[in-house]
This record gives sequence, structure tokens and C-alpha cells, in this order.
Amino acid sequence: MLIVKKFGGSSVANKERIFNVANRCIEDYKKGNKVVVVLSAMGDTTDELIEQAEAINPNAPKREMDMLLSCGEQMSVAYMAMAMASLGVPAISLNAFQVAMHTTSAYSAAKFKRVDTERINNELDAGKIVIVTGFQGINKFDDITTLGRGGSDTTAVALAAALRADACEIYTDVDGVYTADPRVVPNAHKIEEISYDEMLELATLGAKVLHNRSVEMAKKYGVQLVVRSSLNNSEGTIVKEVANVESMLVSGVAVDKKAVRIAVIGLKNEPGIAFKLFDLLAKNNINVDVILQSIGREDTKDISFTVSEEQASDAMRVLKENQERLTIQKIEEEENVAKLSIVGAGMQTHAGVAAKMFEALYSVGVNIRMIASSEIRVTVLIDVDDVDIAMKAVHDKFLDD
Amino acid sequence: MLIVKKFGGSSVANKERIFNVANRCIEDYKKGNKVVVVLSAMGDTTDELIEQAEAINPNAPKREMDMLLSCGEQMSVAYMAMAMASLGVPAISLNAFQVAMHTTSAYSAAKFKRVDTERINNELDAGKIVIVTGFQGINKFDDITTLGRGGSDTTAVALAAALRADACEIYTDVDGVYTADPRVVPNAHKIEEISYDEMLELATLGAKVLHNRSVEMAKKYGVQLVVRSSLNNSEGTIVKEVANVESMLVSGVAVDKKAVRIAVIGLKNEPGIAFKLFDLLAKNNINVDVILQSIGREDTKDISFTVSEEQASDAMRVLKENQERLTIQKIEEEENVAKLSIVGAGMQTHAGVAAKMFEALYSVGVNIRMIASSEIRVTVLIDVDDVDIAMKAVHDKFLDD
Repeated sequence: MLIVKKFGGSSVANKERIFNVANRCIEDYKKGNKVVVVLSAMGDTTDELIEQAEAINPNAPKREMDMLLSCGEQMSVAYMAMAMASLGVPAISLNAFQVAMHTTSAYSAAKFKRVDTERINNELDAGKIVIVTGFQGINKFDDITTLGRGGSDTTAVALAAALRADACEIYTDVDGVYTADPRVVPNAHKIEEISYDEMLELATLGAKVLHNRSVEMAKKYGVQLVVRSSLNNSEGTIVKEVANVESMLVSGVAVDKKAVRIAVIGLKNEPGIAFKLFDLLAKNNINVDVILQSIGREDTKDISFTVSEEQASDAMRVLKENQERLTIQKIEEEENVAKLSIVGAGMQTHAGVAAKMFEALYSVGVNIRMIASSEIRVTVLIDVDDVDIAMKAVHDKFLDD
Repeated sequence: MLIVKKFGGSSVANKERIFNVANRCIEDYKKGNKVVVVLSAMGDTTDELIEQAEAINPNAPKREMDMLLSCGEQMSVAYMAMAMASLGVPAISLNAFQVAMHTTSAYSAAKFKRVDTERINNELDAGKIVIVTGFQGINKFDDITTLGRGGSDTTAVALAAALRADACEIYTDVDGVYTADPRVVPNAHKIEEISYDEMLELATLGAKVLHNRSVEMAKKYGVQLVVRSSLNNSEGTIVKEVANVESMLVSGVAVDKKAVRIAVIGLKNEPGIAFKLFDLLAKNNINVDVILQSIGREDTKDISFTVSEEQASDAMRVLKENQERLTIQKIEEEENVAKLSIVGAGMQTHAGVAAKMFEALYSVGVNIRMIASSEIRVTVLIDVDDVDIAMKAVHDKFLDD
């Protein structure tokens, strides 16, 4: 069996944990499996590198940021190979050049285009555990790119797909995917199986255990994922095409406190203005989430939308640079908002799910500021201070056993 | 003019120094020159990485050490490109893959085979300052190699040769090459010009300002070097083919306190045994320095030689593994020894230089343990405690103005 195992930064944060991961991998190796390990940068390494870079240049070129940040994973994989060697197991570390992991050119937000398998297969055939840097790639200029935060999950899935791996295990510091954040909702419970689509909605909405692009890619290539803890041996959550025959009405509640609402006020009410606005943001690699459009005063339009905290300043800058061209009267930014979402494949066949969610929120006095929904998701924008009480109320309504 | 400028780790140890180096490079760039910058890892980065690696595996595979250590320079060059960008100058960092700098396969002790110039020339033609990682290369397996300590000097010379640069400037934390260590010998003075051969002897013997392989390569390709300080604008020392028409009798005194003497005792006295011994060491990439062979008891041979501190444990391991095959009765290691050398092209035409040196040492009561010499060098092995007094005495004898 060929197994791809991915471990995040906290799983390799120090010597003890590095050896813990090494031993888990060696266990599979000694059973006769071929093992490919994908690692993130150790602990806070990435944050430390970003901090130093910002001290030198707060607007550092993204190409150079990627050049810098890729060192984090390269250090992790080298240390891991050394740990395995000291345990008597042949191992080899490979960076994105060596694999090679080909991506698009977009620095800090690259996407995989193609993954070469020759070098990895040669090393596996030579009896080695292969340790690959997560999060990074190379583009057509031979420059180093990164996939953005959480990209190591995507690396693992891309490798599993390219290598036709039999299993792709994503190790994290929680036991699996929960119906809600157990720190906030005490009766939240672990989900045994979940579909790609449901996981995708949960991942997008901040459930943190899996990066959304990795789930998209797993779905596209039919890679079955297991999300489990690097700290214990519990079963974890399986993510696959169709989870259960009888889909749960709602499989989980997710919260994203890092949402920023941007209000674009007083756009000229003419055809194509919304297209121009969102096209501009898309061309600048800014992902827009919940969108609300309303009629403003004097025959103008107001458009509100949410972006991630990380992209908020980019979005504001781009909008201000184009304020005149887009006929924008005023741009407002609001940070104290959060997104609360329910996700469930069962929604497709059951009416009234949204209404039931709104009822739960009303019952605890939480004000809903914006609403968005997809086939298997309902998201509301609420005040960040209301998050805990709202989450409990919604979880109890749908998921209390 | 195309200028290659190399800065060591202490020159880029913090934000302030990084900007100091950036400004020095930009000065040349703004005069219309093409500028290629070679950097070492910042400050103590390499030592810190080695320390962490040793905590994980004291005998880490050298391939993985190189994978790890190469990150040090990659971080430096990325930070430098960010600093230059913040000063409004287009700059791009390149690692050994991107250049590419092709080396032999020997991890931790690789040698340059070929340097590609296409990428660098393209970036220079595009008006950018190009910042290259020193110390590292790639081998035929696409693996990362390092050149060993001080390898960034060699990178600079290799690039200067490949790019046919008009100047190759090696920046360090001293003003140039001195007749002796000014901290020990107060009346030591800066040398204005020195030949490759003299510099080579001084570099090999621990004068620390230039790595010996870089001088060898500069000689081979006729690259004129300037050694100067990154902290001030003084002229520095020029290293070139023929320094002065009238060569100094002795141009400098050098000390290497990091020598380890290894005594191989009781070798069978048969033809080829010395060849077998040193061939074995050479095949293990261990550089042997001063050699002394003497007759032992019972028709055996004793051979002593010195190696660098870094290679001592490797040398001892290799010898012990082959002790039986080489008919060695006993292997001894002694660390408290130092090499003291005088270097000067003038020795070739003047007799009695060695005798004069021994006289100086005798006058201050320093015992000589081994002697070795070349055409332009005399080296003695002495107790490490005698170094300062011996250095002063020898310098006064030959170089006191």
C-alpha cells in the first residue's frame, strides 16, 4: 500500500514531536507500506519569518516572501529525515524543486498544475521513506511559489492523486471533524464520515481541520481522506464522495471569526457595475464571500461583502485605487463580524432548514446582519460577540443527541 | 562594469546591517554598473541550524545537513531583496537551483563544476540587482550540496569567473589582509597587494579573511580579488597574479589554532603503506595537512599528521574502521596544538628564512613539534598555549617596520 501522511506545524514543533511523527511513519513502513510524508514548517517558524520580513519591508515583494517562507518546510523535512536516519530507517527529504511540484505563477497563492512522480517513485522503490515539503511549488520561471496558508493539506492530496496512493491521512491536533467547536459547544461530537461537499463547506467556513483547496482537489481526483490526530490513535473522520446513505440534515456548525465586512456605498446604478467590482477583486486574487446588494439613495447601489482578515487590507487598497473608475462614493470596513454556518447534504431534500436556524438565533436574541446560502449550506453574518451563544443555540437545534 | 560583491554572515546579521549592505550595492548600481551580490547566512544562523540538527541526530546524513543548511543563505538573499525593494531598487534573489550552480556530489564538501549564466544575465539585463545564495550548489541528482565553511567566497569567485565580471569584491569585518592577527600582534599592518600563491598559503593556514578554495579558483580563472571591510570605505587588499615586482621576503604570519594532530603508531614497515593510509583519508574527503613520518620500534613506522578540528572525528572513525587492514597498532589524537606559518613569495630566492624563523621561536622558548614547508611557506606545529608569544616573535623578526 502507498500511504501519504501529512503532519501540520504543531505536530513537528519540537524534537519530541518530530520523533513521534517519525515513529508513526516508521510503523507503517515496517508493515511493508510505501510511505510519503508531507510536512509543514515547525511550530511558529512561518510566523517568525513573516515578522522578520515585515520589519525589513512591510510591503515585501510576494516572490521574495515565497522564497523566504519555503525555507520553513525545507528545514522541517531535513530534520525529519535526520530523525528517521537516527532510528535506522532510510529516508530522504525532497523540496518542491526536487519532486517537482509545478504550480501556477501567482506568488503566495499558487495552485498545483502538475506533480512529477519519477523522483519520488525512484526513492520509494529504493526502500526509502520520502519526506516532501508541503505548502510550496515551483512555477514556470523556476521561482518558488507558496500555496497560501494551509497549503500543506493540498500538497498531500496532490501527491496522493499523482502517486495513486491507497490512503491520504491528514494529521492534526484534533481527533477529526466535529459537529461544532468542542471548546464552545460541549456536546459537539466527532463526525465519522462526511462527504467532500459538506467538508468543503465546513472547510471554507473556518472549521480549520482541512484546507478547502485540498478538499476540492480530493473531490476532483477521488482521493479519500482521513482526518485524524497525531497525538492519539483514535479513528478520525473519513472524507469521501458519498458519506452515508442517509445524509444528516445538518452535519456541522462552523464559525469564522476572521471575517471582515466591506461595504461599497453609492455605486452608479448601471448594468455591469457589480461585474466590474467583483472582476477587479478576482483579478487581484481576493476571495469574496457573503455578498449582499441593496438599493442606496439617489438611484445608487450599495454592495456589501465579506473577505478574510488576511485579504482585507489588499481589498481596501484595490478598491480605493479604483474608487473613481467604479463610481464609488464611500468604502467602509467593519471587523467585528463573524460568519456562522450550518452544513449538511440533507438540506437538499429537506425544506425549512434555514428557517429553523433563524428560529434558533432569534430564540437567543442574536441579530442576523447578512444571509447567504448554497445547496448544502446556510451562512449568517452576526456580531462577533454573539458567536458562542449563537453556535450553541444552532447546534442544540440540529445536532444535540 | 559588472561587479560581484560578497558579504559574509556578520555583514547581514541584523536589519541595520542588511540595509547597510543594500545601500553599498545600490551605490554601485546607481553608477550604472551591473551588480551581483553573494550572501552568506545571517550571523549565527548556520551554527543554530547545526545545533538543532545535532540534537536530533549527532550523525545526521550529510545530504540532509546540506538540505537544512542551504536554508540559511536562502533566507539572507530573500531578506536582502526585500530591503532593496523597500529602497526602490529592483532586485531578485536566486538560490543554487535557480542560477544554477552545478557542483560535484560530495555533500558538505562539494566543488563547483559549472555555473550557468543565463538566468543571472537575463535578470541583470532587466535592470535588476541579482542576489545569489553563497555556499551552496546542486549536484547531478538535483540534490542540494554545500561547499563547506567559507564557501560563499568560492561562490563569488565562481560567479565572477563565469560572468566575466570586471571586479570581485569580498567584504568582511576587517580592512583587508594583515601581516599577522592585529589582536595579537599590535604592530601588524595591512598588506596592499598580495599574490594568489601567498594568499593561498595564508588562507589555508587560517588567516580567515578568504577561503582557500576561492583563492585557488581566482588564480585558475585569473579573477582579481579585493578584500575589504563592509563597515568602512578603506581600500582593502588586492589579490592578483603578481603582487609586487619586489616580493616581500615574508608577507604574513598566520596561525591556525583549530588543528588536531593524529598519530598513527606501529604501521607495518612495508612499501605502499603510507599511500594506503592517505588514499583512504582522501577518499573520505579528509584533508590532511602537516605530515611527519618516523621510524617506530620493532621495524614499524609512525606517521603523524594534522587535520582540521571539523574533520578530526571523521578521520578518527575512518582510521579505526580500517585499523586492522592498515596494520595500525595505536591511534592517538591530540587537540592542544596550533600551526604557525610564515608566507612570502620572496622565500623562493632567499635562503635561510626557515632558520631565521626557528631562531625567533627559540629566542622566546617555544618548542617546535613538527615542521613542514612549501616553496613560499614554512609551517611549524607548536603548543596552542605558545601561539601568541610565538606569533609576536616571528612577526617582529620579519615584519616589524
